[in-house]
Amino acid sequence: MRLSRYYIPTLKEDPADAEVVSHKLLMRAGMIRKLTSGIYNYLPLGLRAINKVAQIVREEMNRAGALEVLLPTVQPADLWRETGRWDYYGKELLRFKDRNDRDYCLGPTHEEVITDLVRGEIKSYKQLPVNLYQVQTKFRDEIRPRFGLMRGREFIMKDGYSFDKDEAGAEQSYWDMFNAYKAAFTRIGLRFKPVQADSGAIGGSFSHEFMVLAETGEDTIASCLSCDFAANLEKAKVNAPKGAPADESVVPLMEEVATPGAHTVEEVCTFLGIPADRLVKTLLFVVDGKPVAGLVRGDRELNDVKLRNLVGGNEIELADEALVRKLTGAPVGFAGPAGLDPEVPIYADHELLAGTDWVAGANKGDTHVLHLALGRDCDIVQYADLRVIEPTDACPECGGAIEFTKGIEVGHVFKLGLKYSKKMEATFLDENGKSQYMIMGCYGIGVSRIVASAIEQNFDENGCCFPPSIAPFEVCLISLGGKDQDVADKAEELYAELMKLGVDVAFDDRGERPGVKFAEADLIGYPMQLVLGGKGLKNGIIEAKDRKTGEKVELPLDTFAASFADWRNQIWNNWGLETP
Amino acid sequence: MRLSRYYIPTLKEDPADAEVVSHKLLMRAGMIRKLTSGIYNYLPLGLRAINKVAQIVREEMNRAGALEVLLPTVQPADLWRETGRWDYYGKELLRFKDRNDRDYCLGPTHEEVITDLVRGEIKSYKQLPVNLYQVQTKFRDEIRPRFGLMRGREFIMKDGYSFDKDEAGAEQSYWDMFNAYKAAFTRIGLRFKPVQADSGAIGGSFSHEFMVLAETGEDTIASCLSCDFAANLEKAKVNAPKGAPADESVVPLMEEVATPGAHTVEEVCTFLGIPADRLVKTLLFVVDGKPVAGLVRGDRELNDVKLRNLVGGNEIELADEALVRKLTGAPVGFAGPAGLDPEVPIYADHELLAGTDWVAGANKGDTHVLHLALGRDCDIVQYADLRVIEPTDACPECGGAIEFTKGIEVGHVFKLGLKYSKKMEATFLDENGKSQYMIMGCYGIGVSRIVASAIEQNFDENGCCFPPSIAPFEVCLISLGGKDQDVADKAEELYAELMKLGVDVAFDDRGERPGVKFAEADLIGYPMQLVLGGKGLKNGIIEAKDRKTGEKVELPLDTFAASFADWRNQIWNNWGLETP
Repeated sequence: MRLSRYYIPTLKEDPADAEVVSHKLLMRAGMIRKLTSGIYNYLPLGLRAINKVAQIVREEMNRAGALEVLLPTVQPADLWRETGRWDYYGKELLRFKDRNDRDYCLGPTHEEVITDLVRGEIKSYKQLPVNLYQVQTKFRDEIRPRFGLMRGREFIMKDGYSFDKDEAGAEQSYWDMFNAYKAAFTRIGLRFKPVQADSGAIGGSFSHEFMVLAETGEDTIASCLSCDFAANLEKAKVNAPKGAPADESVVPLMEEVATPGAHTVEEVCTFLGIPADRLVKTLLFVVDGKPVAGLVRGDRELNDVKLRNLVGGNEIELADEALVRKLTGAPVGFAGPAGLDPEVPIYADHELLAGTDWVAGANKGDTHVLHLALGRDCDIVQYADLRVIEPTDACPECGGAIEFTKGIEVGHVFKLGLKYSKKMEATFLDENGKSQYMIMGCYGIGVSRIVASAIEQNFDENGCCFPPSIAPFEVCLISLGGKDQDVADKAEELYAELMKLGVDVAFDDRGERPGVKFAEADLIGYPMQLVLGGKGLKNGIIEAKDRKTGEKVELPLDTFAASFADWRNQIWNNWGLETP
Repeated sequence: MRLSRYYIPTLKEDPADAEVVSHKLLMRAGMIRKLTSGIYNYLPLGLRAINKVAQIVREEMNRAGALEVLLPTVQPADLWRETGRWDYYGKELLRFKDRNDRDYCLGPTHEEVITDLVRGEIKSYKQLPVNLYQVQTKFRDEIRPRFGLMRGREFIMKDGYSFDKDEAGAEQSYWDMFNAYKAAFTRIGLRFKPVQADSGAIGGSFSHEFMVLAETGEDTIASCLSCDFAANLEKAKVNAPKGAPADESVVPLMEEVATPGAHTVEEVCTFLGIPADRLVKTLLFVVDGKPVAGLVRGDRELNDVKLRNLVGGNEIELADEALVRKLTGAPVGFAGPAGLDPEVPIYADHELLAGTDWVAGANKGDTHVLHLALGRDCDIVQYADLRVIEPTDACPECGGAIEFTKGIEVGHVFKLGLKYSKKMEATFLDENGKSQYMIMGCYGIGVSRIVASAIEQNFDENGCCFPPSIAPFEVCLISLGGKDQDVADKAEELYAELMKLGVDVAFDDRGERPGVKFAEADLIGYPMQLVLGGKGLKNGIIEAKDRKTGEKVELPLDTFAASFADWRNQIWNNWGLETP
């Protein structure tokens, strides 16, 4: 491709609304343009990068036996009513009516549509497993679209769905997709980590998020420095403390103490002059409509996903003020496990077993209790892992030190089990002629987000440093001859030669000044730059620059094909990638 | 690809709602499934055919210098308000509000979005021309979606837009796209015809529709049997009659005649005992808010597009009853050119010059006039080509005989001129530093519709006969060994060999009966079938069948690669295509 005939509207300035580097650089390098909040035009360069990502993803999906389909963008409400998501899904689901006043939505995800498709066709175990995927533009009406392609409203996703006849098959499908994702992200050149994520009602280890490691990530990952353990904060397990439970027999009798106006942990601790780890924090939730209490140490954070899973519910939310009053007889801030409405089951974080003689709310306005012994004074249903992991915690798998890092979620594999097949009656006849529900899995990759993530991992003050696997063009050939016809001719010859070698090359044949050409090539982030000037031509060499490292070498023109191939291999290898 | 691991849910019966053959066969061959009215899932086979069409279209667009982008599906109303189309576009434009109550629509076309994009970037004539295209899922809320992929609500289109600095450039862009379309449709293997279409206010020959010739087409094309002329009925010119105008001096004075209850041409002619070609039909229209009358012979049909263009308007509609009453002083059915409200300009089809002594409405209830001489009795603003062409008319270009045929519109190239750039202020500075409007063109191809059209042109009682260029797979290798391991092994070997040759092969390795395999291969319409059985293996041959002609040959297994290559070339050549 000749830049003289291409369309790359670069910008000199960062756009005002761009907060993260990928957003700034995608705009400045002329790869995307905003149409309206969270909705972008993909310009030729940006689309090329997206297509390269999609192509790698497709190849790995196909290799793993998944088949590509394309499902509609516009989906009828009826299907979403079957699964209850028409009511349950919030405003992210963009709903509308057609000319006949029928309800539809723009698909943010396709579980309903694919389950409807498969239930209409699959009748027998002999037709299973089925694994279908698509690469498609999706729409989610995000409340706060931001960060360019990172969290848009319209975006490109690969979503896939598997249908199996039994648990063994479903697990196989899950791990096949897990491995295909690893292969795809590796080929794309991302530094990533699969982390355990919450698998809700399914249980087990059948939910993994694929996180691209980057400072600007919105997610936090806990990972072990010694072993393979990595999980998102929602999921990361915290082991029970070692040793025998604390001895409650020595605790004085519980007594009330006035704590006027002290609602928060900090206020209570300051008022009573105690550290936060002496306090028991009591949080009241509603899980699937029923009140539940969760206890954690005053200096810890309760993990509501863990509590929801322990209770075995689908939805969890904090109790509102009215309910807190009803259950505790007190305003918010004074709930405690002793004297709570006996209808409320109390679950305690297992760390609380290690201590006693606690301070807690008294279920009475402006009052706390001292000398609380949980076993003696309350009715605890169960002690379990209920808190959010902290950087000082030990690895739950090997006991080693852990670290917190930031990540960007670019993929998710998830075992759905029977969730959709039960609600939508997706059944088949098994080997014994008995009707069974299909076991489903779903698998997503944020295709457009990956391009942004790759930039978040690979940039410098001059612009993007794309991995060669997904760069809009692998090589930029810069002709610096000005009016020197010999240079122009030689550059044309090299361009033709690179094309013949099957290299994806952008040929900067424009009449721009060298400085402009260099700056744009750096900004766009072609992994390899080849610069031909009058002096080089005279000396029989072309300058070759590795965009990522900035390293320059001179390639002899008389053995160009061979020396370029060597250099190219080296660049790909430096990225940990195989030259195509 | 192995059919044992593929997903092709074929159907034995035609679906109840399928009226045309492509709809029936796409469903029966397991290529598409209906989600809801006018909205289809593309299954693996169907998507492959669509992708092959899209790929050919992309290659020809790129070759012609157009650049691929991807524009959003969801478009803000504001842009459509700028061009006035938010109000003007009917219910086909699906509109909705986002969570913040802002107006949006699902893009049925992208003139507004692309013009907005380009006006933001292009400042100078040096940046022009620009030609951008996309392949995208579009949505039009059709009032009567039907015929499967032929007229759906959600469909895949290639739409492209060019921006030029002057007329010469705009014409060049137009013809570049015209030729690229011809090249693409030829490579796809369609029998098609570019036909002149109405270019509205632009004038000239800058609107062509590309019609696939098929009985089931919804459009009618008039084309010459002697020369290259072809046009849709809206556009097809009818030349003025030869010879001098009729002599009005011999016509008796006009007189009224009572025609009680005779409103239609047929009723009047029967009542008066005259043929329809003795009558002048007077039709009243409103063009851009102003009344206009059009005259054609009683046996002809007025072409309102021609009248609109003659008047130089944008919108034309028939006058309603109230207006007819106001302008004629009579109920509908008695309008005539003599005595009409003098504010109404009268345009007459030039065929009327050849006759005189007409019968026409008298602008009085239940009354007509006899002996009407248009020049003598009325004030005709202009005589021009105003009627719809008929099969008995002569070719307007060479005078030869014409024929009417049915066609399916699969592409349209159109010069937009300044329509959008003026309304949206898409300007640039020319060579003299003067601000000018960009001259636009738009170009569309119905990608998913092409797959249906190809079937409409190529099928038989057993199923589809796809052109090899867009068939889901080019070859189906059918292994008939049953439990014969030698056959199975040889089939595997041939499969590997075909893959190595780069042939797109579906390998029917399933344990199905031969009859099932043959019937499915015919139904799906792989252009080439290779059938390996035990007897053939023993005799060292494999049977090769041309799906389109049904012709069978035997290829020797010991020189398989070469003999297959020959046979394959022959098949492609029979289709008028080059083997890839």
